[in-house]
Amino acid sequence: MRVAIVGATGAVGHELLRVLESSTLKFGELQLYASPRSAGVKLPFGGQELTVQATPEGAINADLILASAGGSISKEKAPAWVAGGAVVIDNSSAFRYEPDVPLVVPEVNGEAALRHKGIIANPNCTTAVAVVAVAPLHREFGVRRMIVSTYQATSGAGQKGIKELLDQTRVVLGGGEAGAEVFAHPIPFNVIPHIDAFQENGYTKEEMKVVWETRKILGDDSLKISCTAVRIPTLRTHSEAITLELERPATPEQARKLLGRAAGVEVRDDPGAKLYPMPLTASGKYDVEVGRIRSSLVFEGGLDLFVAGDQLLKGAALNAVQIAEYLQEQGALKGRVAG
Amino acid sequence: MRVAIVGATGAVGHELLRVLESSTLKFGELQLYASPRSAGVKLPFGGQELTVQATPEGAINADLILASAGGSISKEKAPAWVAGGAVVIDNSSAFRYEPDVPLVVPEVNGEAALRHKGIIANPNCTTAVAVVAVAPLHREFGVRRMIVSTYQATSGAGQKGIKELLDQTRVVLGGGEAGAEVFAHPIPFNVIPHIDAFQENGYTKEEMKVVWETRKILGDDSLKISCTAVRIPTLRTHSEAITLELERPATPEQARKLLGRAAGVEVRDDPGAKLYPMPLTASGKYDVEVGRIRSSLVFEGGLDLFVAGDQLLKGAALNAVQIAEYLQEQGALKGRVAG
Repeated sequence: MRVAIVGATGAVGHELLRVLESSTLKFGELQLYASPRSAGVKLPFGGQELTVQATPEGAINADLILASAGGSISKEKAPAWVAGGAVVIDNSSAFRYEPDVPLVVPEVNGEAALRHKGIIANPNCTTAVAVVAVAPLHREFGVRRMIVSTYQATSGAGQKGIKELLDQTRVVLGGGEAGAEVFAHPIPFNVIPHIDAFQENGYTKEEMKVVWETRKILGDDSLKISCTAVRIPTLRTHSEAITLELERPATPEQARKLLGRAAGVEVRDDPGAKLYPMPLTASGKYDVEVGRIRSSLVFEGGLDLFVAGDQLLKGAALNAVQIAEYLQEQGALKGRVAG
Repeated sequence: MRVAIVGATGAVGHELLRVLESSTLKFGELQLYASPRSAGVKLPFGGQELTVQATPEGAINADLILASAGGSISKEKAPAWVAGGAVVIDNSSAFRYEPDVPLVVPEVNGEAALRHKGIIANPNCTTAVAVVAVAPLHREFGVRRMIVSTYQATSGAGQKGIKELLDQTRVVLGGGEAGAEVFAHPIPFNVIPHIDAFQENGYTKEEMKVVWETRKILGDDSLKISCTAVRIPTLRTHSEAITLELERPATPEQARKLLGRAAGVEVRDDPGAKLYPMPLTASGKYDVEVGRIRSSLVFEGGLDLFVAGDQLLKGAALNAVQIAEYLQEQGALKGRVAG
């Protein structure tokens, strides 16, 4: 099987290479693509060096394309990639809301991936992190309302987001005044309740993605979901405070037990030992950390919890590769297994 | 009138001096007290320099004492101060939950201060910031449920909290590994969902303070309130995402209008112009910034909003001085007006 990464030099592209190195996915050739100005860049993979090429105009000679170069490139080029015979796992929001494009988190709705028509969408990072924790609770206790407040890292805006945080923090520590190019305002030691564009209803697109995508992944349009998405001065890993109203009452003990068995989740919930989810411990980790599990004080039988998940991994690269692994396990990826 | 500040060298003490300089409070003598190791320190006030003295064992010869030296000192010494004839406005949590101690935010329940028996409690900073925004909405529309997620600055742990963030951030930027003494974990580029001690119900004391104190200030024990309190790497100003279920439906326009007339609030809510509450703009400001006002997606007729308030000011020093100003305006502070 021939695999291609489009957007190989970005923050998610970097993680895709690392995740593929330790993946169970069987493939031969690996092609790396990015914008023309990155052509010729060499990236390490499995002890070798692979040369990045400029993304071509038309089809790519690959069986599986992992696309993470932004919505406009996916929107423009994915149809040609599909016409050329590839299965596309797309990390952008370009196709997520199209009814015949599956939106997949393998632990939650892997089987939806099998119904693809060439394109499978990877969810928004905030949604992916939340849904691995919420899905098992939804299945067992029935989520009615879900209120999410996020603590999102600068790498959600890519490498340039990380760079701006580090560079501008140095400016502030040197006694200067921070500037902003990537973010709407200076990010060092600040909090910006603005991620992606504002919609007519006053919510940002980032916030509405959590609403739309969680419903689509859980297959339940009746879910009432609200989100406040906030950028904070961290490098990596999105944290989220989540309040759940449930149809059937749950105790924290039941939730901990259930989540302890759930795939993709690490229950990290021992406050006495200062164990709870944090970017410091969740960064670089495949599992989403879930903790601070407690009975809701506003919904009888409901739950409050706190999650921290590496949004470049479960929120992007890891989830995309897990979709590919699932498809291959199900015999739904063509191409020779080893090149 | 003779005023004394106990805890003058701390983060809140520093702000008390600045706020008193521009206050309408009429007073003569100002005495500064702190721990013995700070005795002799000189602090600027109104163009002069005042010398800090060690807090004495018994009474203090003052009519008004602004105490901000921590709960154990207040608990130990406030009764003697009251016995000595002073009115004590206490910034610690030592007396907040005693039924005969008023807990006061002047814009919300100033008249409660008049019923004091010597001690008036200043609320927890997170509560004070939230309640100036929520109280007008509660009066008009009736809050039923309130869900709060906080983004709290390191200065909530005092000067040493700020210092640890700055020092340890320098360590990380220099390629080292951050340590932690003030906070439970390294704070640079991290998120710590742990402020104050954990309670039996799994909530922290900081979270329960928001529950208990909001109810007491609003005078409504039926309010269902939940909080997730989170320390983030900012220097100053607590931000909060707040979701409100209301008895009578409110539109964002109604809320903006109402809050635009409310004391202590600055409506900063023009997303198209990138105007919303942020530490960057709220720090050093007396008013609490309120914005991102939008119809709730989980409670019909409810509201979502985002607030940012300088917790050293409205959350501490400013609120304490405003209580004193209110008492003096009401003729409820004794002592000569000018020394």
